[in-house]
Amino acid sequence: MEKLEKYFSSLTDNKNPINLYQPIGYILQQGGKRVRPKLVEISTHIFGGNIEKAIYPAASFEMLHNFTLIHDDIMDLAPLRRGKETVYKKWNNNIAILSGDALATMALQQILLTPVASDQILKMASLFAQTSLEICEGQQYDLDFETMDQVSIDQYIEMIRLKTAVMLAGCLKVGAILSETSENNQNEIYNFGIHVGLAFQLQDDLFDVYSDAETFGKQIGGDIKSNKKTFLYLLALEKANETQKAALKKWFSSETINFDEKFISVKSIFDQLNIKTETENKIHYYVNEALSNVENLTVSTEMKTVLIDYAQQLAKRIK
Amino acid sequence: MEKLEKYFSSLTDNKNPINLYQPIGYILQQGGKRVRPKLVEISTHIFGGNIEKAIYPAASFEMLHNFTLIHDDIMDLAPLRRGKETVYKKWNNNIAILSGDALATMALQQILLTPVASDQILKMASLFAQTSLEICEGQQYDLDFETMDQVSIDQYIEMIRLKTAVMLAGCLKVGAILSETSENNQNEIYNFGIHVGLAFQLQDDLFDVYSDAETFGKQIGGDIKSNKKTFLYLLALEKANETQKAALKKWFSSETINFDEKFISVKSIFDQLNIKTETENKIHYYVNEALSNVENLTVSTEMKTVLIDYAQQLAKRIK
Repeated sequence: MEKLEKYFSSLTDNKNPINLYQPIGYILQQGGKRVRPKLVEISTHIFGGNIEKAIYPAASFEMLHNFTLIHDDIMDLAPLRRGKETVYKKWNNNIAILSGDALATMALQQILLTPVASDQILKMASLFAQTSLEICEGQQYDLDFETMDQVSIDQYIEMIRLKTAVMLAGCLKVGAILSETSENNQNEIYNFGIHVGLAFQLQDDLFDVYSDAETFGKQIGGDIKSNKKTFLYLLALEKANETQKAALKKWFSSETINFDEKFISVKSIFDQLNIKTETENKIHYYVNEALSNVENLTVSTEMKTVLIDYAQQLAKRIK
Repeated sequence: MEKLEKYFSSLTDNKNPINLYQPIGYILQQGGKRVRPKLVEISTHIFGGNIEKAIYPAASFEMLHNFTLIHDDIMDLAPLRRGKETVYKKWNNNIAILSGDALATMALQQILLTPVASDQILKMASLFAQTSLEICEGQQYDLDFETMDQVSIDQYIEMIRLKTAVMLAGCLKVGAILSETSENNQNEIYNFGIHVGLAFQLQDDLFDVYSDAETFGKQIGGDIKSNKKTFLYLLALEKANETQKAALKKWFSSETINFDEKFISVKSIFDQLNIKTETENKIHYYVNEALSNVENLTVSTEMKTVLIDYAQQLAKRIK
């Protein structure tokens, strides 16, 4: 991981044009949790691949992730990311568009540079392209949902699969490809990533309402404040009677309401409809799916434990 | 070429999310001159490659080109392209950013789908990535130049090499890679593309001042009107005495001047400094470089003639 930080510096330091590469260095060197490189590393470890070589796909998927952040922040008008100004705020829209474009290409180059056989590189590159395109699709659905009157639970799950889960799954699969493990293992680890990703996102939705700010790490009720159509909201709409539906729609149509009153009222409707338990059940469902993906892997029990621990961490957090 | 149009339709028709794929279909189906696919075809023909297979890299580079148009039009605030509304105007900024991103990835996918050996695909993919990154660099320099007080001729040539020439050169080289011709041929055809591209761009700069609107195909003096730092302007600044320099800087610093007066005055300074002839000399230099690249190719005289005709067409136009 420390190698990764140095590697990132080497890719952008003193490169021209400075207005293109400086924003890229800025976002890559902010760090963040580095979840994606970690997943590439875990997967490579589990399937007995070469950890040294894994730095290239690990860098690639982290760079792809950061490219999406640069462009998403323009679209979402987000002023801050990881406590710092976003690229389009610190520079401007044009520089954010262009440095995002360049970063996506640099991410691809990392895959192409991986010192493995051509066939493996090609498989990794195809996965990279598929992941990249699906993330665009997910972001477009997310933007579409903002102005749609009706969004089904299935549509929502598909959106978060594309926007969030495929990236995690891609990181795990790229480690599997690098390690030249079986097709079966590649698919199971990919689906493990999808299920964990879905569970993660639903948990994020849940914690916005049912947690305290300290555990959650961000402000409670942010989704409700911004009228975001989360899993909880969409599930509530599906289960609500006419009165509850009208109330929910009213609360989610205005921006000028007293926030405390809004939060308490919306939460009260969620409580009446048993939304917390149903969301937890859905999360447990995905965690269990993830665990069965692990069971289907042909790796040692020790290696399975690494992944199970990862999924269990999640399950613990929602108890 | 007709196949290409059908192929483009098949990539976007009825695909969801519609707000992502419709803008992509819109720009791909506008046509344009299809210069880039044509170059891939010419190169594949010259080096005896498989024309059927060339449709994938041809589609790829045309898609990459259109991706840059979608994003450049946002940055340049361009309302029209090929006589139609630009993507960001017809839809909005967010959709233009995102559909551009998706189109760039789809362009990569075409390279990866080419039915040739993995090693060849990898070489094409590396060229694709290099080209894509260099175009970003070129666009960034172009944006930087707008607010820079001093831009040297060398900096300008480097900018147009990156922004325009590498794409044409890439198209020619990708056909050469596909055809499995020698390294030497690959490099010479690439440099031929660079030199032709530079000549093209300088000619475009020249015609903005020294041509009639009918031959040029667009309005005369557009670059002067928008205070664009063209080759002619930068060369004039380098050669100007203090009085001429002050006059040029004055004319190029305001937007509210009477256009006819501005055009006549600027052209008169260009005439005093012999800018037309010097620009023509520079164009001839690049055309001759391109011709010597052709001479260095190990292909039949008949095939060389195809390329020489292409370069001569240019030379004729500037007489």
